[in-house]
Amino acid sequence: MNCEVVAVGTELLLGQIVDTNSAWIGEQLALAGIDSYYQTRVGDNLERMTAALRQALDRSDAVIVCGGLGPTPDDITREAVAAVLGVELRRDDEVAERIGEMFVRRGRHMPESNLRQADVPAGAQVMDVHPGTAPGLICPVRAAAPSRRQPQGRDKVLYAVPGVPWEMRIMVGQCVLPDLQRRAGSRRVIRSRTLRTWGFSESDLAERLDPEIRRLDATGEATIAFLASGVEGIKVRVTAKAVDDSSTDAILAAVEERVRAVIGGAVFGVDDDTMESVVLDMMRSRGLKLGLAESVTGGLMASRLTAVAGASDVLLGTVVAYDRSVKTGLLGAPDVNAVSEEMALSMAAGVCRVLGADVGLATTGAAGPQSHEGAEPGTVWIGLHINNQADEAAAASISRATGRAASGAADGVAADGVAEAVEVRFTDMDRDVVRQLGTITALNLLRTRLQSRSTL
Amino acid sequence: MNCEVVAVGTELLLGQIVDTNSAWIGEQLALAGIDSYYQTRVGDNLERMTAALRQALDRSDAVIVCGGLGPTPDDITREAVAAVLGVELRRDDEVAERIGEMFVRRGRHMPESNLRQADVPAGAQVMDVHPGTAPGLICPVRAAAPSRRQPQGRDKVLYAVPGVPWEMRIMVGQCVLPDLQRRAGSRRVIRSRTLRTWGFSESDLAERLDPEIRRLDATGEATIAFLASGVEGIKVRVTAKAVDDSSTDAILAAVEERVRAVIGGAVFGVDDDTMESVVLDMMRSRGLKLGLAESVTGGLMASRLTAVAGASDVLLGTVVAYDRSVKTGLLGAPDVNAVSEEMALSMAAGVCRVLGADVGLATTGAAGPQSHEGAEPGTVWIGLHINNQADEAAAASISRATGRAASGAADGVAADGVAEAVEVRFTDMDRDVVRQLGTITALNLLRTRLQSRSTL
Repeated sequence: MNCEVVAVGTELLLGQIVDTNSAWIGEQLALAGIDSYYQTRVGDNLERMTAALRQALDRSDAVIVCGGLGPTPDDITREAVAAVLGVELRRDDEVAERIGEMFVRRGRHMPESNLRQADVPAGAQVMDVHPGTAPGLICPVRAAAPSRRQPQGRDKVLYAVPGVPWEMRIMVGQCVLPDLQRRAGSRRVIRSRTLRTWGFSESDLAERLDPEIRRLDATGEATIAFLASGVEGIKVRVTAKAVDDSSTDAILAAVEERVRAVIGGAVFGVDDDTMESVVLDMMRSRGLKLGLAESVTGGLMASRLTAVAGASDVLLGTVVAYDRSVKTGLLGAPDVNAVSEEMALSMAAGVCRVLGADVGLATTGAAGPQSHEGAEPGTVWIGLHINNQADEAAAASISRATGRAASGAADGVAADGVAEAVEVRFTDMDRDVVRQLGTITALNLLRTRLQSRSTL
Repeated sequence: MNCEVVAVGTELLLGQIVDTNSAWIGEQLALAGIDSYYQTRVGDNLERMTAALRQALDRSDAVIVCGGLGPTPDDITREAVAAVLGVELRRDDEVAERIGEMFVRRGRHMPESNLRQADVPAGAQVMDVHPGTAPGLICPVRAAAPSRRQPQGRDKVLYAVPGVPWEMRIMVGQCVLPDLQRRAGSRRVIRSRTLRTWGFSESDLAERLDPEIRRLDATGEATIAFLASGVEGIKVRVTAKAVDDSSTDAILAAVEERVRAVIGGAVFGVDDDTMESVVLDMMRSRGLKLGLAESVTGGLMASRLTAVAGASDVLLGTVVAYDRSVKTGLLGAPDVNAVSEEMALSMAAGVCRVLGADVGLATTGAAGPQSHEGAEPGTVWIGLHINNQADEAAAASISRATGRAASGAADGVAADGVAEAVEVRFTDMDRDVVRQLGTITALNLLRTRLQSRSTL
């Protein structure tokens, strides 16, 4: 079974929008074990869309066309799909009614053109999830008569989903992938769970999980796939098949438990979790307030945390101490080397004091391209300070949990709390990657320390 | 003349990398007035790459294949191009020598496999820019005998460029686009200049520049194209043709001057300038130090500025005052509504005082999805404070330049400097877009105020 993606929209060809939808779908297909050999982008032009879809159906078993399902005249994916299938468009009364009700609920007048979204190619099935007004379509494509090219005619399928990312993701996740997996041959219920990991390489994870992967190979009840996701770590996806929902969920839960027993420390979240959402949730459930002191990451930690709605429950604020005068002045750090253990510890303690936070997290280093105060580009010191008065239990647990990192680490009880510093080196990487890796490494340090204790 | 892009790399299909190269090339083609109807992504597989390139050459006049020119065994674009052209690969001694010298200069041993990069399809021309070790290729494709599909056989061209973004950009900008424009029919020198604008809509810019566009239509010496670039504003690209370099540059300079006379206030930069690089350069040349106080933008202003190497010359630091306690405590703001003129002004003045900055720039507002202290999502107040003692001339010029924004503005001489606040509303936009637009609007306010005065 293989599946390719056709993304529709002139704005994609013009570079006004970067096609992140195709990348996301490609990742989901890979995680679901479905091969994908091509991706195409085509503009809002009926002839070229039809040509692109015909070709995709010719060379692949399944096609996901993304975009062009809106209500405006340039949204012509419905027409292109009908042309490719050789059928008429018919207005679907149920879809029309649902669209009308959605406008009523929002207290807005519905332009007549919105009903175009209820036009469905004859023989197509409307997806049973409805995040927006545009319906998703499942269009079975009957096998052509056997030809020289395809001596055995095969039934294929074309899925149409909207280009709005969140609507697309819901439809692909809840309808397209399960439908593809059913067509791939299994009549059983198929479900997946993605464990987000940080800290291990892909080969390292594969080696550690090898016994479990072999066990699953033997039983056939589930599979494990790995996907490198750049600076965001490696995803480990468990996919289980069983006769019904509860058996599938039971297998997933059991495999997750066995996987966590081996690589648990590296697992920071599940499915849609991000490092920042996980850290915010952990701080929130423990009633702790966070302050950041950023030098090398220059506001990136703050920016990622505040991108999550509700971050204000946890994050009091951030001091981006870019200049030495801010480190020594506002944060009260001593006049030591800017890229040092002592500076990282002082910044973390300083931001706790200045903002009245329970936990202070600090970064200082050299992002490059030049070295900074003698430190090579890629050197990052991370400082963590937990205020004693606010959280004596946390402080005690941090003292126990602290270990020495590869390149150097320091920890101890400061005058007014518990402190820890870790040095990491990201060599031969560009400025942006150093900043990104520094950010996630710092958040992960805080996560692992919070994990080692229960709620306040 | 039309041209399509084929991006090569299995990592693109797996979603491990988002294909920003194709988006960038698409934008450049659009700005150069070259149509582009399709984009394809294909994995590192000889058969499928060959099929994708054949099809692209079949339906387009020119093809840019991007990626797969490296030294490792999965880099097989050279082989695929040779197969499509029906020619052999030949080692180019000049390229081999250049690659060897590059390793010597870097003091590194060259693995023998790197010489694969010197293999060039017979009849192809090596591009005369060499940003990395991989050579760019210009491969003329002779017209096939006339067929029913193409009754008039036409000469075509295939360009191969590396997937490393900065290498690709240099080759496409300096070689591919000029070559395409030459082939498009002109024997004259063609050059472009992109003016980056902020504040006007595309239709607004088109209307204002209509007389100049008509004048150029009549003379034929240059063209003007517009390109919306999301939250980064609208690009206005001027492309001039003339008999030689100096005449082309003279036309570009003259058109730029006429365009700036009409929309000058909206032009923040040229070509590779960004809003943040421009603001940093202006502050640096005036010898001014910047401090930021961010609430609604949550560190995004700091993060964008510090992404520019050398930002430390200008940016002292940032206080992300997310919690009310940081606004009233550290920044010394009065206990007023968080989303208000008075708060924005107090934060800007406060960060100047706390960090010892000459200029303080502040944001406060409601990013959404919830309203914040009574302010609708999308409401952003921007505060700007220039320290009197540091810069009396600047203060005076700001007093003169200040006007009232659409939704409300306030300005006046504060006790210790000159202050200004502007309210903007980004309605019906999601959290991330509100934060991005707030960031650029704030930086643009600072830019326009700095512009109205010369160096210190």
